[in-house]
Amino acid sequence: MQIVNWQNLDPIEQRRILSRTQLQDNHELSILVKTIIENVRQNGDSALYEYLAKYDGVKLNSLLVNQEEYATTTTLSMEAQQAILAAIDNISAYHQSTIPQSFNLEHKHRKLGKIYRPIEKVGLYVPGGTAPLVSTLLMLAVPANLAGCQEKILVTPPNRDGTVSPAILFAAKACGIEQVYKLGGASAIAALAFGSESIPKTYKIFGPGNKYVTEAKLQVSQHCNGAAIDMPAGPSEVLVIADKDANPAFVASDLLAQAEHDSAAQVILVTTCLNLAKQVKQQLHQQSQQLSRNHIIQQALVKSTIIYTPDLATAFSISNQYAPEHLILQIANAETYLSMVHNAGSVFIGEWTPEAVGDYASGTNHVLPTYGYAKMYSGLDVSSFMKGISYQQLSAQGLQEIGATVECLASLEGLDAHRNAVSLRLAELKNKKF
Amino acid sequence: MQIVNWQNLDPIEQRRILSRTQLQDNHELSILVKTIIENVRQNGDSALYEYLAKYDGVKLNSLLVNQEEYATTTTLSMEAQQAILAAIDNISAYHQSTIPQSFNLEHKHRKLGKIYRPIEKVGLYVPGGTAPLVSTLLMLAVPANLAGCQEKILVTPPNRDGTVSPAILFAAKACGIEQVYKLGGASAIAALAFGSESIPKTYKIFGPGNKYVTEAKLQVSQHCNGAAIDMPAGPSEVLVIADKDANPAFVASDLLAQAEHDSAAQVILVTTCLNLAKQVKQQLHQQSQQLSRNHIIQQALVKSTIIYTPDLATAFSISNQYAPEHLILQIANAETYLSMVHNAGSVFIGEWTPEAVGDYASGTNHVLPTYGYAKMYSGLDVSSFMKGISYQQLSAQGLQEIGATVECLASLEGLDAHRNAVSLRLAELKNKKF
Repeated sequence: MQIVNWQNLDPIEQRRILSRTQLQDNHELSILVKTIIENVRQNGDSALYEYLAKYDGVKLNSLLVNQEEYATTTTLSMEAQQAILAAIDNISAYHQSTIPQSFNLEHKHRKLGKIYRPIEKVGLYVPGGTAPLVSTLLMLAVPANLAGCQEKILVTPPNRDGTVSPAILFAAKACGIEQVYKLGGASAIAALAFGSESIPKTYKIFGPGNKYVTEAKLQVSQHCNGAAIDMPAGPSEVLVIADKDANPAFVASDLLAQAEHDSAAQVILVTTCLNLAKQVKQQLHQQSQQLSRNHIIQQALVKSTIIYTPDLATAFSISNQYAPEHLILQIANAETYLSMVHNAGSVFIGEWTPEAVGDYASGTNHVLPTYGYAKMYSGLDVSSFMKGISYQQLSAQGLQEIGATVECLASLEGLDAHRNAVSLRLAELKNKKF
Repeated sequence: MQIVNWQNLDPIEQRRILSRTQLQDNHELSILVKTIIENVRQNGDSALYEYLAKYDGVKLNSLLVNQEEYATTTTLSMEAQQAILAAIDNISAYHQSTIPQSFNLEHKHRKLGKIYRPIEKVGLYVPGGTAPLVSTLLMLAVPANLAGCQEKILVTPPNRDGTVSPAILFAAKACGIEQVYKLGGASAIAALAFGSESIPKTYKIFGPGNKYVTEAKLQVSQHCNGAAIDMPAGPSEVLVIADKDANPAFVASDLLAQAEHDSAAQVILVTTCLNLAKQVKQQLHQQSQQLSRNHIIQQALVKSTIIYTPDLATAFSISNQYAPEHLILQIANAETYLSMVHNAGSVFIGEWTPEAVGDYASGTNHVLPTYGYAKMYSGLDVSSFMKGISYQQLSAQGLQEIGATVECLASLEGLDAHRNAVSLRLAELKNKKF
């Protein structure tokens, strides 16, 4: 990680330091994903089995995980079972507070309000790969449950032997998910968006994935009969703000935790203390030797930067400009600086709050906006699994009070059928001599 | 409007009746819009002036509405000025209740919460055309103000003589919008998403438009450096549920108000009373003769249907399946049926609540999900102009309480740098002998 002095950089260099790796407009990828989606739309299950054989190397007779397979959950260690249940408890406790509240207000002679309803059918994508991403399952299923979504369709790529990890199945069961399907990649997203003989169509698709999954989510969200998606996605990222009192070992460990995700992961340290910057570099070197994913970490760190700036105001300004997915504050009285945060996915305050706690078990959601999208998107919570419906009811007097306003504005816009809908009611009221 | 008996239809016919006009995958449109967006990205203002000349037939020296032009607002009638101000009052009153509330909770030794921040820069698109859509401006600007968005960039197509309607300028001023630019169509959306010499880049773009605007919004929302958008859009639509006590003239007037929007508008009446169905048909014929946009109305009504079903439960089931943008309840004790509404944009309850009041001045927002998107999207409110940021702060004890859970789950996922960030803190705490 290079160390740069922010004040010595011109605005162009400053922008370059904070710019993300350009997400390539990959035409080949886009065409391939489009072909996969069309094939699934037209041929349903048979296309899904074809892609499972081709990309996951498995031949299956059924996509749905059956009751026998759930029996494998007993092989999961008691420690892991308890960790999953503890995480569910904490995630539930936090997400309870994010349930959107209906309201009703009476304003003059109008009753107005908003009610929230679950999205009835949701698709949850849990990535596979080298390790089962149990935590992602929890971050999707717990809020979907609290929202009250009636159908939760979970898809996850099977292992080479056609199985799904006991940890995933245990977590699914603990979250009350009854339908787990063995499916991964773009074809899984197509199935969730359009349905097939086996897979029910869903209205909104949640969860992270590789570039095929990400592209497929974008494509189905553009299709008028497709599905909505949680948010667009880029590589994971962290920005740490640290002062002279920060513990360099802690800071380094948080940067490394981010870097191990992906060689494209972005890691930025902004510090008001040059000495700390140097100590963190040493710690990065030292700690990374012990880590199993060091080859990924080193690739991620090459593109990463330590920014020195003498004052915290500038540090927060840099952070808000970057709009990190994760923002870690390792500064004295960190909690008092929350008011300076304008753009971030989730904030980790103080030395005993590593990002890893939010990834797994503090209770907040770890599906967060990346790539600067924190400027306009929120991370997941229960509201992501619901939609609001506004309503209004006017009494006769209520209509008489605002009728003229509506008539005038309708005329201004040249919409006389709109005006007429009010005028003939007002005439009726006049006849009735209210 | 044809009358059909729901019970006599087979499931395929039922689905057909409720299906929307297929939005065409218009390849030519998509290519044209892509070209326009690229031209604006590369050539900025000069491309914008080029398209103004080409599509709006105006030659301008400046895109920004200047102070002199605001003087034209004095030509607006006092009645119109008061109507606009009254609408702003009502829209503000309702939208106040939709401001998302930050929360903070202490759970064991963890402080967790969520704060809401305005999206700093927002783009507001107000369509032009034959009449100034003042109401759309209010529906975008009022919640943007309540959210606290710092930069509100409003664009609207100029008239042929290069002016912007006094009503639009009066409303903009009343909403405290300082930057109004003369721009329309796909190029306006490109400018809001990427910026130009004159137009500041924004993070999220709001507002309805024609097919070029809609396509451009979709395209810039897919671009990794583009902008988010409020929601995808299709033609406007209404579904009315009416029983034997409904006033056929009122029901017809609401159907006509919807039909005058667009020849592609969709209008459905579901009624438990065959006699009412016939009376409504008569009223449609009678009232439409008097309406200036009858040519549009007749085109819309051709595709529209009156569905007869003897029971209200089925009527609500049809409505939830269709998921209308606007749902009007003209039934006895209408307010008691709100609990049966699961998918709709906005609900209009009872005989004195024509849809037109919500379009203009009851207070709710009229930018609502169309095309069945009410199954997964909400209409606009203040939360659409903000984003939530979660946070957490653990005390030393808090970390000790959940540390083992996090370590276990990180190991399960094979992410040992995540585990390490917790382990070295726990070790430090042990040394400190808390």
